[in-house]
Amino acid sequence: MSSPKPVLTREELEVRLRQTGAERYHNLHRFHRRLHNGQSTYEEVQAWALNRYYYQAMIPIKDATILTRMPDVRDRRHWRIRIEDHDGRDEGDGGIERWLKLTDSLGFSRDYVISTQGILPGTRFAVEAYVEFCRTRTLLEAIASSLTELFSPAIIDERVAGMLAHYDFVSKDTLAYFSQRPVQAKRDSEFALDYVKQNAATRAGQDAVLAALEFKCSVLWAQLDALWSAYVDRAVPPGAWMPGSEATHGQAA
Amino acid sequence: MSSPKPVLTREELEVRLRQTGAERYHNLHRFHRRLHNGQSTYEEVQAWALNRYYYQAMIPIKDATILTRMPDVRDRRHWRIRIEDHDGRDEGDGGIERWLKLTDSLGFSRDYVISTQGILPGTRFAVEAYVEFCRTRTLLEAIASSLTELFSPAIIDERVAGMLAHYDFVSKDTLAYFSQRPVQAKRDSEFALDYVKQNAATRAGQDAVLAALEFKCSVLWAQLDALWSAYVDRAVPPGAWMPGSEATHGQAA
Repeated sequence: MSSPKPVLTREELEVRLRQTGAERYHNLHRFHRRLHNGQSTYEEVQAWALNRYYYQAMIPIKDATILTRMPDVRDRRHWRIRIEDHDGRDEGDGGIERWLKLTDSLGFSRDYVISTQGILPGTRFAVEAYVEFCRTRTLLEAIASSLTELFSPAIIDERVAGMLAHYDFVSKDTLAYFSQRPVQAKRDSEFALDYVKQNAATRAGQDAVLAALEFKCSVLWAQLDALWSAYVDRAVPPGAWMPGSEATHGQAA
Repeated sequence: MSSPKPVLTREELEVRLRQTGAERYHNLHRFHRRLHNGQSTYEEVQAWALNRYYYQAMIPIKDATILTRMPDVRDRRHWRIRIEDHDGRDEGDGGIERWLKLTDSLGFSRDYVISTQGILPGTRFAVEAYVEFCRTRTLLEAIASSLTELFSPAIIDERVAGMLAHYDFVSKDTLAYFSQRPVQAKRDSEFALDYVKQNAATRAGQDAVLAALEFKCSVLWAQLDALWSAYVDRAVPPGAWMPGSEATHGQAA
């Protein structure tokens, strides 16, 4: 038998969380590399935007789920900002709306995108697993699962610069979603990191926090796996969006 | 506006259900074709058995979930048999135990298989989506989602004959799981088919039944997509089983 694992200091826990990101965040996925290197086809970018819409659309549901579980009003005030960022304050505002500007520009009708009828089962199952995780695990684990945002400013810089350089069908306007995210993600991930460092007081709690971040990395990774299989390797599952199909030509330009 | 869709006769509903299977069941997936044609490597067969263990292991959980939602004692008596088939009556009995004989024969330790630590996130998310579907949808939809069993005797015949013909590392003993399944699946799917034909009395209910079967086909399909991506295309996600890794060499031969 090995001796029981020692409780980590807050700094050690942060180092391990950052190490998890360095090993498992989806900036390491071949689909991300392909996308920002300019190797993706127009149809692959379409498929990425269409599928990722579902992830974006479910983020406020996920955050509201966490809100239902927060006993502390100060925590809730802070966490509520995430919902406001995604849902906006008025018609035409918010992160989801900005994501729809991207899918508009790629020729999808809003009705089709919002229906999510063309997304991959792998996308749906991964995103639903994330919401379910935040519903059923401890509040500490639910908050820890948001910590992929520690790593998102870097991937967004790389993605936006790469996509603007390589694809004439994207512009700063159509990528407006990403212009807001680094500042929001930094603010949100600082709150979440402080929370888990303060509240993961036992080694079991710390291990649960690390496992929650691994889980969330797998949620993001699995979405890119599904995109690669369907649209790079061209094995589209039955019922999912087919490049060039009618459903893309709705009310959008 | 089109006129409202007419209610289908019971026979028409059955025809559409069988049509859904003919178009979406995972016997059409390239991983299945590769497996039964003898093109899979030993490592691919290992990965298939390891991942599918999680599906097998969660079937009684899924069926118990449905049992919690059945008000009719006669329905419950019938549905309970599914749990008995998978869990067995005694130590060493039941479908899960027979599946473990397969993973034993492929060099995995039981502890490793049962821990499910090496399975693909895509497997986990798909299987959990299935259990969650049966927990949150109507009882009619939950029962309808089991109807892939209408199509399983044919795929089992094809799989077992193909695997015995092509792989010297499988035998009738190691494939014992499948020897019991066709009879059980026929009995179970006849019950479920009768149930949905009797209880889907509106067109909306019938459409929900058809959508539930499509959903379940996508649960099976997504599992084979994940296997192909990781082990045929050789892009194993972080944390999943790596062919040849230590974890396969446990207490089994």
